[in-house]
Parts: sequence; C-alpha cells; structure tokens
Amino acid sequence: MTQVEAPHATAKERPGAQVRRRIMDAAMEVFLRDGYVGAKTDEIAAAAGASKQTIYKHFGRKEQLFEEIVLDRLVGIDQIFKAAMTELATADDVETTLRAVAHKFVRALTQPSQLRVRRLVIAEAGRFPKLGRAYFEAGPERVHASLASCFEELARRGLLRIDDSLIAANHFTWLTTSIPVNKVMFCGDDVAFTEAELDHYADSAVRVFLAAYRPD
Amino acid sequence: MTQVEAPHATAKERPGAQVRRRIMDAAMEVFLRDGYVGAKTDEIAAAAGASKQTIYKHFGRKEQLFEEIVLDRLVGIDQIFKAAMTELATADDVETTLRAVAHKFVRALTQPSQLRVRRLVIAEAGRFPKLGRAYFEAGPERVHASLASCFEELARRGLLRIDDSLIAANHFTWLTTSIPVNKVMFCGDDVAFTEAELDHYADSAVRVFLAAYRPD
Repeated sequence: MTQVEAPHATAKERPGAQVRRRIMDAAMEVFLRDGYVGAKTDEIAAAAGASKQTIYKHFGRKEQLFEEIVLDRLVGIDQIFKAAMTELATADDVETTLRAVAHKFVRALTQPSQLRVRRLVIAEAGRFPKLGRAYFEAGPERVHASLASCFEELARRGLLRIDDSLIAANHFTWLTTSIPVNKVMFCGDDVAFTEAELDHYADSAVRVFLAAYRPD
Repeated sequence: MTQVEAPHATAKERPGAQVRRRIMDAAMEVFLRDGYVGAKTDEIAAAAGASKQTIYKHFGRKEQLFEEIVLDRLVGIDQIFKAAMTELATADDVETTLRAVAHKFVRALTQPSQLRVRRLVIAEAGRFPKLGRAYFEAGPERVHASLASCFEELARRGLLRIDDSLIAANHFTWLTTSIPVNKVMFCGDDVAFTEAELDHYADSAVRVFLAAYRPD
C-alpha cells in the first residue's frame, strides 16, 4: 500500500524544522490516543523530547498545534492528487485513467493513519467547527475543485458529458471511497480490506460514473 | 422536514417504560453534550429526575446505556425505510419511486439529531468498536440489505440490471447522502441545507444510479 505520510523532506529546509516535525509527530500520536480534550501538553512534550516552552514557541496554544498537525496530514494526499489530476486532464483513454485514479484514491483514503485523523476531526467538529472546516477546505473541497476542473476540461474535449462539474466530482469520490471509509468510521480501526476488495470498489465506482457521465 | 425520533408509542406498552424513555432522552442529551467519556451518570440522573440506582436497574453500566440509546435512534429511520422499501419493490415506475425514496432518505439522514448521533458513534468507534459495529449493523448494513433485496426483485422484473446488489445498494445510498452528511461531519452541526439543495442531491444521485443500473 502506498504510504501517505507528512512530507519529511521539508524538515531540512527551515531552521527549527526538525524540532517542529518531532513535536508534530509526537502530538499526533497523543491526540489520536487521548482525543483533543484529553491530550496534555506535558505528554506531548515528553513524547517529543522537548520542553513545553518550545512547543508554545513553535505552535502557540493547543488549538493551533492541533490544527497545524491535522492540516499537515493532508499535504501527502494533495501531492498524490496533483499528479493524478495532471494525468487525468490530458488523458485520451478516460476509462483507463479514471480507473487508475480511483485505485490510487481508494488506497490513499483507506490508510489507517488517514482514517484515524478523519475520525479525530469528525469527533471534534461539533465542539471545534473551525478546525473541521479548515480540514474540509484543505481536503475534500480542494480535491473536488481540482477534480471538477479536470472533468470540465475532459468535457470540453468531448470525453465526458458534465452539467454540474462539482456534483460530478463528488459523485466520483464518494462512489469510490464511501464503502470502505464509512465501514472503518463505524466499525473501528482494525477493519482491513483486501486489495481485491479495494479494486472492486474502485472499478464498480468508475463503471457507474462513466455510465452517467460518458457521452452517448 | 419529517421528524425521525424514537418511537414514544412503545413507552405505554411496558411497565417502567416511561421511566426508561425519560432516562434515555436525558442520557442522549448528556452524551451529545459531553461525549461518552465526559458523560457522568450523576448528571444523567439529575436531567432525568431519576436516581442513579434506577438508571443502573434499568440499563446496567454506562456502556450498556450508551449502546441502547444509540441503537434506539435507528428505530425511527428503520420505520421510514420499511415503508419506502415496500413501495420500491412493487414499483412499476422505478424512476419516480426511486426519486421519492432518495428524497426521503436524504432528509432523514440530514436531520440534526441523526447527524449528532452519527458524529458521537464515529468519535467513540476507535475506543468502542463494539458500539460502532452494533450501530453499523442496525443502521447502514440493515438498510443496504433491504435495499439490495428490493433491487434484486426489480431486476427479476426486468426493471433494473444488477450484478452485485449490495454494491448497488451502497452506490444508491452514498450517492444520495454523502455530500450533505460529510459536510456536516466536518463543518459542524450548524451547517444547514435548503430544500432545493437536498432535492438536487437526491435527483442527481438517482440520475447517476439509473444511468448505470437501468436496462438498456
């Protein structure tokens, strides 16, 4: 399975970046284990081998640290999609390319680390809608906007027939990922999928999508 | 908007049922406000005007009370679906009937009380997968199983063309509900939808579904 982790490469680019990365990794583990309310800055500091003062200096309050590490997790997903979108917008064989995108997509979104963050954001979105909205904008909304402009381009080239490109983008992503993602959301983080299951979800999603959005 | 609440009628059928109902309603409010871990039996007792002993007598431990009230919320949804399913299995005009089902479905699942329970179950499913699984089985899995047998019946009558009826059922429900449900999960409980938006989600879902699953 492709690993989508935070991009460690950037840690070499700024002074203090390695300390920030260590704090963010430690904080993610503590937040995932104890939830937002239960997470203690003391424990994050101990896990990161840093002082509380260092954490405050780099991130400010717990709320800002939480927001920063959650959004950071989306960077890896975004990189996968940028490559896939370029491929898709210039595709001639839409079916083959869409299928490849769907296969990558369902694997990226069913990674345990992504799903645990997703659960955490949903859990806190009632109390901290600002964080949830930031995640939604940087994650699903951004992906849907990119996908929608790909679909518009494919429609201009006569390869798709699209009336509402944003709805079409949503149909594509939810058809592809809803079955496994919702199963994990409800049934817990130990639910696993075989490669064949993920392929089946992706292929059947593409079949339904193209039946609706391919020109006659 | 149709109200899907727990069926109060049953409260008259058993001795002690009114006390149980009062405790369950109070407990739901406390769980939703404070989360599972934060919810205190003392506060549930105070809100219900009952003693802690009465709560223990009727429900046992906090975990059992939580499971019971969460599953209870699905009863209302189930009743809506039973009626819709009967209508669907015997439909002659599949498009009109499916559209009616989709309109009911998207309204039932976007009710604030349903979405708050959904968030709560997802929030706790990492720590309490048993509860999440019970909810999944009594909710999405049961709806998908009923819908799948409707679709099989419609396929037998030549009105749909279905190879994997359970995947088709999932496609129908997630196409219909994923856009608004996910938006609320991430962006918080204050997100509201206009009737026109809900209609658009339902109608475009049915259009995509039928493009894929209607016989040529």
